[in-house]
Amino acid sequence: MKQFINTKETLVTEAIDGMLRTAGGRLARLDGYPHIKVVVRTDWDKSKVALVSGGGSGHEPSHAGFVGQGMLTAAVCGEVFASPSVDAVLAGILAVTGKAGCLLIVKNYTGDRLNFGLAAERARSFGLKVNMVIVDDDVALPDLPQARGVAGTLFVHKIAGALADQGADLETITEAAKKTIGGAISIGMSLDTCTVPGSPKEDRIAHGKAELGLGIHGEAGIEQVDYSNARAAMAMVVDRLAPNLAPGPHVAIVNNLGSTTPLEMSVLLEELTASRIGSQIRWVIGPAAMMTSLDMHGFSVSLLPVGKTEEALLQAPVAPWAWPGCLALGAVSVLPLPDGLTPIQPLPSKNPETRKFIERCCDILIAAEDDLNALDAKSGDGDTGSTLATAARALVKALDRLPLADLTQLYRAIGLELSQTMGGSSGVLLAIFFAAAGDASSSGRGAIGALKAGLDRIMQVGGAQPGDRTMIDALLPALNALENGVEAAAAEARQGADATSRITRARAGRASYVSEANLSGHNDPGAEAVARLFEQLTLSPALTSKSA
Amino acid sequence: MKQFINTKETLVTEAIDGMLRTAGGRLARLDGYPHIKVVVRTDWDKSKVALVSGGGSGHEPSHAGFVGQGMLTAAVCGEVFASPSVDAVLAGILAVTGKAGCLLIVKNYTGDRLNFGLAAERARSFGLKVNMVIVDDDVALPDLPQARGVAGTLFVHKIAGALADQGADLETITEAAKKTIGGAISIGMSLDTCTVPGSPKEDRIAHGKAELGLGIHGEAGIEQVDYSNARAAMAMVVDRLAPNLAPGPHVAIVNNLGSTTPLEMSVLLEELTASRIGSQIRWVIGPAAMMTSLDMHGFSVSLLPVGKTEEALLQAPVAPWAWPGCLALGAVSVLPLPDGLTPIQPLPSKNPETRKFIERCCDILIAAEDDLNALDAKSGDGDTGSTLATAARALVKALDRLPLADLTQLYRAIGLELSQTMGGSSGVLLAIFFAAAGDASSSGRGAIGALKAGLDRIMQVGGAQPGDRTMIDALLPALNALENGVEAAAAEARQGADATSRITRARAGRASYVSEANLSGHNDPGAEAVARLFEQLTLSPALTSKSA
Repeated sequence: MKQFINTKETLVTEAIDGMLRTAGGRLARLDGYPHIKVVVRTDWDKSKVALVSGGGSGHEPSHAGFVGQGMLTAAVCGEVFASPSVDAVLAGILAVTGKAGCLLIVKNYTGDRLNFGLAAERARSFGLKVNMVIVDDDVALPDLPQARGVAGTLFVHKIAGALADQGADLETITEAAKKTIGGAISIGMSLDTCTVPGSPKEDRIAHGKAELGLGIHGEAGIEQVDYSNARAAMAMVVDRLAPNLAPGPHVAIVNNLGSTTPLEMSVLLEELTASRIGSQIRWVIGPAAMMTSLDMHGFSVSLLPVGKTEEALLQAPVAPWAWPGCLALGAVSVLPLPDGLTPIQPLPSKNPETRKFIERCCDILIAAEDDLNALDAKSGDGDTGSTLATAARALVKALDRLPLADLTQLYRAIGLELSQTMGGSSGVLLAIFFAAAGDASSSGRGAIGALKAGLDRIMQVGGAQPGDRTMIDALLPALNALENGVEAAAAEARQGADATSRITRARAGRASYVSEANLSGHNDPGAEAVARLFEQLTLSPALTSKSA
Repeated sequence: MKQFINTKETLVTEAIDGMLRTAGGRLARLDGYPHIKVVVRTDWDKSKVALVSGGGSGHEPSHAGFVGQGMLTAAVCGEVFASPSVDAVLAGILAVTGKAGCLLIVKNYTGDRLNFGLAAERARSFGLKVNMVIVDDDVALPDLPQARGVAGTLFVHKIAGALADQGADLETITEAAKKTIGGAISIGMSLDTCTVPGSPKEDRIAHGKAELGLGIHGEAGIEQVDYSNARAAMAMVVDRLAPNLAPGPHVAIVNNLGSTTPLEMSVLLEELTASRIGSQIRWVIGPAAMMTSLDMHGFSVSLLPVGKTEEALLQAPVAPWAWPGCLALGAVSVLPLPDGLTPIQPLPSKNPETRKFIERCCDILIAAEDDLNALDAKSGDGDTGSTLATAARALVKALDRLPLADLTQLYRAIGLELSQTMGGSSGVLLAIFFAAAGDASSSGRGAIGALKAGLDRIMQVGGAQPGDRTMIDALLPALNALENGVEAAAAEARQGADATSRITRARAGRASYVSEANLSGHNDPGAEAVARLFEQLTLSPALTSKSA
């Protein structure tokens, strides 16, 4: 069991301090460490009803994360999964309660009830008006008269918080809180238990099982159920909620109990929406981690019937970032795909000289297949020759539909052909090379300039530089020399390709994973292909004028 | 390996739809499932520069969660940890790009570079202005020329997003993005690997070890380091960042890689603040899950040097909730504890009759110790008698300092004494009983009425009702009969206590965990204590007048 903590004993106080570091002074803690761990608003004038909640830690962002304008006035934090002391609760009450009074929002656990209850008595003996409500939203155990308080507590925080912010009096807020508690129902499901700091992780959920109806303190769920997938899981959760559901529209809290990924949470919301109670859910809070159980891989769904009043209160803006908002649940907006995904095929045109040049280039690459494969086998997976030859064969077959008379269109068309016929990174890179060349050509650059622009682009996109043992080591010097003729380009390409045999540390591409010994003494196959292409082209003088 | 998904193949599309359910129509997806998974803003008029990012899924909320006003215009989503196709990227570009152009923000992974790169070429062939920047903020591998793009990408999204929102042109935004990339550095640490959907979880991190310098695709970190605690972990992270740190103030992203609890993340921020580079960190984004690696139990820290310009851009408000804000890092505000935590001891006063009555009550409870323990042993842990007797002995010793002549003060003082000397739930409940009685007495209720108010309060706070097999089953009828004299009260208490022997399902307190067979046929020890108290008091006629 490893966790990013220092000691179990200092975990909660260090975490509270860490949280307060970025509060900009709007939140503070009381000076009572380690026994009194209370986070309070500093932007608070006591003219409104204070809302105090809390309980054991380990449910973050509850409760300290919900202290701020529009929600809680103070949070009283115990150690992990342990109720705070009476003194701590009393300190919280006294710190924030003025003449308007204070409402304690307490989850239904014996320790919290008693400690908050006695603190309330003590505060009353000072003449303070203190009410207390007990949240018992868990429907996992239908026969238990004292249901647990779980994520539905957030409904109470938000509705009471909005009312307090509006200046409602203590009785109004208390009644609204009680009504909310009366309507809120929740149930949770988990695929794994949580890791309690300082304790070994319990391994109690069997293979292929999930726990249904669990609390937020690592206690076992009411039953282990067969787990198959998200849809079936949500159906079981819905089966528990449905019998307790009031008629009419509801708001749902979709709560991440800890380590469930956002992907999973979104799938679960999708399943809730599609479930048999989905049509009754008009608003959603989450999916988000709001009332967690440390790192538990689980979720809970809470429901509350809502009218216009509750909607407005739940949607009122608040300061705490942890509140994800109360959002309308609706259809998925789908926009049509934009035009242009199916590239327009250029009009074919004829140019015998260009056709012959391309055929010659392709023949050269096809002829080099075996040699390049053998070279690649020394530092890669031996397919450079085949990749290039396959692309060359496909290009020859495509010649009839290429715009051979329009260089700009031709570059683009070759790029398109290569991207469709040549797999892997090299195919995409060559496609980028020719597409960028076409782009440059359309901007008025000449043939060589356009090719250089293509090379610049693949250096930018691919990230390889000269000296990185790639085809660039041959192609860049060749293009730079090309205005002096194919012979000059071929000489430079050869020199560049041969130099790659002395580059024993590849810095890009697959060869970067190959050891120095396996790279030394033979050329990079891509650079060799470029060198061979230019060298062989010198044997076909008619093309010199064409390519320049 | 259990996860809340349906199938690996439908995970990403279902999750995107789930996310869009609550977007209120401000976000949409393109109609290209399953191959084209693009989330776009619908509140977008193409007059500003579009920002398109994306990559493999599994990094949620990146990238779709950051689409919205002030951040991204579109997110192109691949399958989990797999680059989206060229067509998908092109669809995203075409869907949102107008005359102002588009900036592609791409993390430095070969697949993303190539696919976004080729899509950019295709978009350019339509005459669109498309720039692309490559984020390479990872400093884990100092020698690698192509560092990975990790959480520092968020700096780019936010700064470019704010500029685009302000109407800056493409070149300005591109330069700002490049400057941001040039300054951003990141490193991550993890205690466990992530769970890739459809694959067994790799178990490669040894006991007592952590991985330092990891990417966000489950690949191994550059080294396994000894793990001791959060402080040492952050020190190692800081050691990697410090050599790359520019002078002057910085902003930090404190990123949760997946399943690290908020408690741990806050501790890590506290340690970063206290670290040797803490004084250079002026602003913090997070702690929050922003660029995750599925459910990885890890974190990353990213740093960026900031001036006034960057500060303003990073703090500009945005629509996406996933953005946690850029907050000033400062001192922890600490407020003094409020007065009143140390209860004022009431002035002692004398009343021989009251003193004698209390002594008599205490004697009765002390005498009943063994019997009550024996009774409790049948349904609990056998300490009810000792608990009451210990409290009674302490109360007798405290008589000299009690305000015996003032019933209101006396109730409160007894409550205070009991809360300090009597452990457990029963101590707190009796303390609440007497404190509430004192409260009622101060409001003018008589002695019996005050006690009834106390009972009401413990029923509310403790949650037990008549019939739940608690002391209430004796105390409530006794108090109701008390105005007719102690004899009447004693008879009712006895009847109530004896009735508890037939309550075989306790609904509150520890006995609720005891089987029916173990409860049947003997009285609840708390109720029995109440009955004995009243019965014994009838033997002391002088007290009848006092207690009524």
